[in-house]
Amino acid sequence: MANIKPSLAKGTRDFSPQEMEKRNYIFNTLRTVFKKFGYNEIQTPSFENLSTLTGKYGEEGDKLIFKILNSGDYLVKAPEELLDEKSSNKLIPHISEKALRYDLTVPFARYVVMHQHEIALPFKRFQIQPVWRADRPQRGRYREFYQCDVDVVGSSSLLNEAEFVLVYREALAALGLKDFTIKINNRKILSGIAEVIGKPELIVDMTVAIDKLDKIGLDGVNRELLVRGFTEADLDLLKPIILLDGTNDEKLMSLKEVLSASSIGLEGVTEIEEVFRYLKDFGAERLLDNNTIEVDITLARGLNYYTGCIFEVKTNEASMGSIGGGGRYDDLTGMFGLKGLTGVGISFGADRIYDVLDELELFPASSVSSTQVLIANFGEETHAHTLPLLFNLREAGVAAELYPAPAKLKKQMGYADGKQIPYVLLVGEEEMASGSYSLRDMSSGEQQKISGEELIAFLTKNTISCGNIVRNIVIND
Amino acid sequence: MANIKPSLAKGTRDFSPQEMEKRNYIFNTLRTVFKKFGYNEIQTPSFENLSTLTGKYGEEGDKLIFKILNSGDYLVKAPEELLDEKSSNKLIPHISEKALRYDLTVPFARYVVMHQHEIALPFKRFQIQPVWRADRPQRGRYREFYQCDVDVVGSSSLLNEAEFVLVYREALAALGLKDFTIKINNRKILSGIAEVIGKPELIVDMTVAIDKLDKIGLDGVNRELLVRGFTEADLDLLKPIILLDGTNDEKLMSLKEVLSASSIGLEGVTEIEEVFRYLKDFGAERLLDNNTIEVDITLARGLNYYTGCIFEVKTNEASMGSIGGGGRYDDLTGMFGLKGLTGVGISFGADRIYDVLDELELFPASSVSSTQVLIANFGEETHAHTLPLLFNLREAGVAAELYPAPAKLKKQMGYADGKQIPYVLLVGEEEMASGSYSLRDMSSGEQQKISGEELIAFLTKNTISCGNIVRNIVIND
Repeated sequence: MANIKPSLAKGTRDFSPQEMEKRNYIFNTLRTVFKKFGYNEIQTPSFENLSTLTGKYGEEGDKLIFKILNSGDYLVKAPEELLDEKSSNKLIPHISEKALRYDLTVPFARYVVMHQHEIALPFKRFQIQPVWRADRPQRGRYREFYQCDVDVVGSSSLLNEAEFVLVYREALAALGLKDFTIKINNRKILSGIAEVIGKPELIVDMTVAIDKLDKIGLDGVNRELLVRGFTEADLDLLKPIILLDGTNDEKLMSLKEVLSASSIGLEGVTEIEEVFRYLKDFGAERLLDNNTIEVDITLARGLNYYTGCIFEVKTNEASMGSIGGGGRYDDLTGMFGLKGLTGVGISFGADRIYDVLDELELFPASSVSSTQVLIANFGEETHAHTLPLLFNLREAGVAAELYPAPAKLKKQMGYADGKQIPYVLLVGEEEMASGSYSLRDMSSGEQQKISGEELIAFLTKNTISCGNIVRNIVIND
Repeated sequence: MANIKPSLAKGTRDFSPQEMEKRNYIFNTLRTVFKKFGYNEIQTPSFENLSTLTGKYGEEGDKLIFKILNSGDYLVKAPEELLDEKSSNKLIPHISEKALRYDLTVPFARYVVMHQHEIALPFKRFQIQPVWRADRPQRGRYREFYQCDVDVVGSSSLLNEAEFVLVYREALAALGLKDFTIKINNRKILSGIAEVIGKPELIVDMTVAIDKLDKIGLDGVNRELLVRGFTEADLDLLKPIILLDGTNDEKLMSLKEVLSASSIGLEGVTEIEEVFRYLKDFGAERLLDNNTIEVDITLARGLNYYTGCIFEVKTNEASMGSIGGGGRYDDLTGMFGLKGLTGVGISFGADRIYDVLDELELFPASSVSSTQVLIANFGEETHAHTLPLLFNLREAGVAAELYPAPAKLKKQMGYADGKQIPYVLLVGEEEMASGSYSLRDMSSGEQQKISGEELIAFLTKNTISCGNIVRNIVIND
């Protein structure tokens, strides 16, 4: 056994106990909101047949898929000429038949097609799983990271779009975020604009350019539009659209005028209006009034993929790119031979949300520590006192530990500090004789005398009860 | 884009919404119990450097590790002679530098060594993550499956062993299991027996043979012992030990006699006695009296790995192999250059526990369904009634959906059935006029008239409130 100094594989991360608590807090909060809206969780395997993934993400994407080497004598069937030529790329299908999941969308499409006869449509699902990409690792970009997707397939109703706005609102609010903007656009509006200008074939170039308005300003966008084949006259036509201003209603009104000659463009406006009408019927018009929702026709996001409404969410409390996005796509499962299934979905950027909550100190105390009280260990002769107490604390749902050896008190206190345990209980000879223990509050340093029964009552009241969590989850009344 | 009929990679599984609910129920229950005992969750990446994993699982194990092909022009540095010879095995390190996690133990050891300066010892951790093995898939054996490990490193106290007994007891009871046996043995007792017989070098052969007592009976064990180098005289010595009978105390007493000449053997007995003493101090002597805990010296489990106590758990309510096991190991991190760290740990066989709970119908209703009420859709003109109601239900923490289109009622009912939604609410013209809706109980088929307010009160009381789960988890009082 070689004695090597261990390291992480490039672009991967360990998650410490405190990071895990915070990550679970985010995922559990999202999971609870998704379920409240009727989305069900599924999971797909970490690896798929290579043929399931290849060709779905473009040529660049294919390169970033992690391929798994076949087991056993994997070279036996490899064509000799490919080995001689060292044709790395051509050899792949001969020595690898499996690959790690690159996103959650293609496996979801595969799932829907394979299980189409068990699924009641519309199928509302969410999925929170890691994906892997052979990207060059950078600050904030990892080779293993979680995606968190919510989708409905098999329903063209714009109620679904409206509900996704409510999902964003409730999930982000539940995480403690107060000021965020949900941007909405519609692919049909972008098509309409390109049509009105008379350059429908340049829709992709147009949207790529105006998508950059935030970063490069109008002059930058104009320069890029000229390079991409638009004329000065086109720029004059586009300017009022790009700089569209006012309330959402005013923007939609202006768009109707601009797009009056484009039926597809008007359809896009009507779809957004219908989403808004649903939100008003929900009693959520405040989201529309205070600009939590914002019509933004510069929003493009994966244009070649989306066919209807497009969403993007950003927080206004921290400087951070988008923390979520999504939209409607007309053909999720066509790649696997099941045509005509429409879908709409959104995703949450869990890593970015984590960073925002950390920066704003929005993680609740309960998401940082788990053990609520450490009983200091003063030796075997105290066990007849401390072990029943420990047992009863846990029965009452309080996460508790006895330090496992009679180490120096300083060391035991250091352990409690390291684990961010809020209370330490001291049970020495004096305490055993009097039946009154000393409870130390680790943040204030204050100590109080307390009996065993009082202790349980105090900690049940003042700390997180994990027993109760289980009870609420598992018991039906 | 090739139009292929999609399939799963061999040995992998999709998890449907209902399977996910059940799996999450198991994992959340375990997680809650682990935290109550002061264990903290960590996660490690799905892939490690190949060098971190190679050589840790024996030659057979190495073959079962899934290797990931390097990205880009991975053949460029491959030695030509290995390609010419088609030396699959020798080529691996030249074209693959990463591999999928094979178990949770080696990554945990790597974690402890890399983070040794941040960790307060003893380090109590648990980890619930998938692992991957290139095994031949069989019924019940998958290439991707979850492991669920709980360990303490850096503490030699037998309090840890005693606590693991309590963890098993509480976790299995929380899952609804009523009759299970926690078997305990000690590697030192096995060493002592081999020593007393005068064949210490045959300890592995001895334990491999007697480990099979359950399956092949005493005659079978004897035949195997003879083949493995024991004599008829040895068998006479071993017989009373293999057939050791009586209460735990009686067994320990007999072992003390048999092992009186072996100090290591006696040490093993003393360790089990100390674990039992801790359990008595905890007030958990009932576990000892009613044979929930059972001394079983035929228990061996990965003998070359464990150095002290050994555990195995089986349910007596279903015919199923072990559903968990573990033990103490003296040198977890030596393979990465950090010597002398002792550890003890147990694991839970999540897939087997799942099958047992399914067979015994122990999954609570709440772990099967998520949406609690479906509002039937009778068209746009009802939205002014149904959408605010839907909004308020969710605000009250009730998972609720509106069917997204005014489809035939039969289809909507079928959807509710498919998702196992317990209630369907009917809001038609008559209901809107009277303000009194019809609530259908999908299991009994009964319908009751109910107002909007009554509905929320009724469903809050009679169904799982997901809002409350979040609140209990996130709020500190």
